[in-house]
Amino acid sequence: MATCEIISVGTEILLGDILNTDAQFLSQELAKLGLSVLHQSTVGDNAKRLTDLLTEASERSDIIILSGGLGPTPDDITKEVCCSFFRKELILHKPSAEKIENYFKSKNREMTENNLKQAMLPVDCVIFENNNGTAPGLAMEKDGTHILILPGPPRELKPMFFECAVPYLRQFSDKIIISHNIRTFGIGESNMATLVNDLFDSSNPTVAPYAKDGEALLRVTAMADSEAEAEKLCEPMLAEINSRLTDYVYGIDYTCIEEAVVEKLKNRKMKLATAESCTGGYISKRITDISGSSEIFDCGVVSYANEIKHRVLGVSEADLNEFGAVSEPVARQMAQGVLRLSGADIAVAVTGIAGPNSDSTNKPVGLVFVALADKSSVWVEEIHTGRKDRDYNRYVTGSTAFNMILKYLRNN
Amino acid sequence: MATCEIISVGTEILLGDILNTDAQFLSQELAKLGLSVLHQSTVGDNAKRLTDLLTEASERSDIIILSGGLGPTPDDITKEVCCSFFRKELILHKPSAEKIENYFKSKNREMTENNLKQAMLPVDCVIFENNNGTAPGLAMEKDGTHILILPGPPRELKPMFFECAVPYLRQFSDKIIISHNIRTFGIGESNMATLVNDLFDSSNPTVAPYAKDGEALLRVTAMADSEAEAEKLCEPMLAEINSRLTDYVYGIDYTCIEEAVVEKLKNRKMKLATAESCTGGYISKRITDISGSSEIFDCGVVSYANEIKHRVLGVSEADLNEFGAVSEPVARQMAQGVLRLSGADIAVAVTGIAGPNSDSTNKPVGLVFVALADKSSVWVEEIHTGRKDRDYNRYVTGSTAFNMILKYLRNN
Repeated sequence: MATCEIISVGTEILLGDILNTDAQFLSQELAKLGLSVLHQSTVGDNAKRLTDLLTEASERSDIIILSGGLGPTPDDITKEVCCSFFRKELILHKPSAEKIENYFKSKNREMTENNLKQAMLPVDCVIFENNNGTAPGLAMEKDGTHILILPGPPRELKPMFFECAVPYLRQFSDKIIISHNIRTFGIGESNMATLVNDLFDSSNPTVAPYAKDGEALLRVTAMADSEAEAEKLCEPMLAEINSRLTDYVYGIDYTCIEEAVVEKLKNRKMKLATAESCTGGYISKRITDISGSSEIFDCGVVSYANEIKHRVLGVSEADLNEFGAVSEPVARQMAQGVLRLSGADIAVAVTGIAGPNSDSTNKPVGLVFVALADKSSVWVEEIHTGRKDRDYNRYVTGSTAFNMILKYLRNN
Repeated sequence: MATCEIISVGTEILLGDILNTDAQFLSQELAKLGLSVLHQSTVGDNAKRLTDLLTEASERSDIIILSGGLGPTPDDITKEVCCSFFRKELILHKPSAEKIENYFKSKNREMTENNLKQAMLPVDCVIFENNNGTAPGLAMEKDGTHILILPGPPRELKPMFFECAVPYLRQFSDKIIISHNIRTFGIGESNMATLVNDLFDSSNPTVAPYAKDGEALLRVTAMADSEAEAEKLCEPMLAEINSRLTDYVYGIDYTCIEEAVVEKLKNRKMKLATAESCTGGYISKRITDISGSSEIFDCGVVSYANEIKHRVLGVSEADLNEFGAVSEPVARQMAQGVLRLSGADIAVAVTGIAGPNSDSTNKPVGLVFVALADKSSVWVEEIHTGRKDRDYNRYVTGSTAFNMILKYLRNN
């Protein structure tokens, strides 16, 4: 299997000014191609240190993928250093130069001489056209080592990777790798492991557990000569896992639980409304992150203050006084209230203590009531996250509400 | 100046399963200590490759900071490999062993023999106590090279860094570095540069521009023998920048624009309400991200559907039909409607096309109307982000609303 390494170039990463999401993206995508990434490195815009790193990398890896440092300013040196490392000369590539000139014309901006630096390319390279910026990327080879250079900004790097780098990299991988993620909610990673422990020994497909943001998922990965064959290897394993974890599995290959909610409500042509206290709009934000959610979502109310819970949602003042805002009856009435107000088919409501501090009642941080109402009934779950982390508590509260919707849809 | 490098250990980072936020955190904090980070690397849980990397790192850096691979399982090898690299023997550290035993007792969980692996420490090291987990960290030195080992999970790494690593690292830095971020909204990075271009040549303090999520900020950094002296160097520069960019600056050292909004509304004892269409709750979510926001936030309505805009917020049906949901009159009436409903002092409302696709009217993606209402007037801004990126458009819409609140508070 060809080995691959990733070099991110940019002083701003070393200073911690930007988070290196490119390295994660490239690692994920290279794994899908069956290429094994054994090193990630970051180095500043410094010719000596980049050259040293290229020397080390070329001794241990077949393919070196660099990102960043393709800009028009003199401190952008990635291409120049790589070409000098491979002893390749840079010459002006006319089509790229024209593209850059046209780009500036179309934006009504003056092109400076600097910008043509981006059109300087080595003679015998594969040029990666940039459809989202001015810097072309490239791939070149010497003595069996391959160097690929991509622009740093994710909105340029990602499309170029799929459009140009993937076709180039196919030559190194004679196997196809397919992964499926079985997503669960409400079962801890260790409980899940107990139920499927023996499957972790399987070698093709492999099965591996991941925990993330209060969810546990299982990744099933198969390697074969063709996609169809790899899928066929996955199938029985997916079925087996599904049968063992059936109460917890909410779907396969969703990127997040709210995506499952939107899709399943769409299929049922049902509308959702939300009433939020501690999450402050985070639940409706996550629903509306999904493009096309307008088909299933009409209305949300963020009733942060008690008065709004009473006046807009019709929660009983007596119950607010007797049980407090964070209570089962209030969650129930919030869900019923927003259901009436919106005319949706179902509504979820949440009220809880997100933290880091409790409210005046001294109820524990992480206590949340989540209610789901339809036109004939309401159902409330009480959760205790056991954490004081505001972001985590708000996120998990939302996921719990989404999971209740999915359970409701399975049973109704 | 001592040079420092960061080694992240973990196959899950190389597979792209987790984003390496530790490296960013460490880089930022090391820069504040005046330590210069010239390399970041990531390697899997593999003894040979980690040893090779330590060899390279010790040749080029004074201080090597490792994170990850301190867990109780056999594939966690960071500490073992580093000690073997320094030829230091690991022995059981009784106080750490007791702490681990007590940890398991307190959680009513069985401790396995494995867990005591975490209490094995080299004789002559500085032990970093872990108050948020079972794995202690450590610092050790040989022939002038220092190795610091920290646990991987951010909620363990961050407090240990501040409590233990910072005091240890102070010996390498005789200077204090202070930074202040001047935050602006509504001026592009290049326009900002034109106004303050000459200041970028200053050497102490330095001035550097950053662009992030539709905002531009200037970082002023001074180095001196004491904090007071560094602050004194910053002061005149901050004043100068403030006077040049006065229309755009919303504050210094805020972590985000919503933090400024919450603080300034608190100071004025004013309440805010929100009515959101395209942002779907993202604006109220960002406000309620800020702990203590309940003092200034009562009520938000997410009126995704036209019917809700009309029925709950009182937007005129005729205007909805004539101008469409994404229009100046609708934004205006949404803000007025939620102001009435909530009884707040001011309200913001947004309606726009977040993308990636337009609605049935074919208005351009990225067109948004943002309204701010108080009890006597309404003011609407029309923005065109020029992008099709749904996340970006929703984020920038929120920031524009927050900036309008800040402008309102400056003028009223």
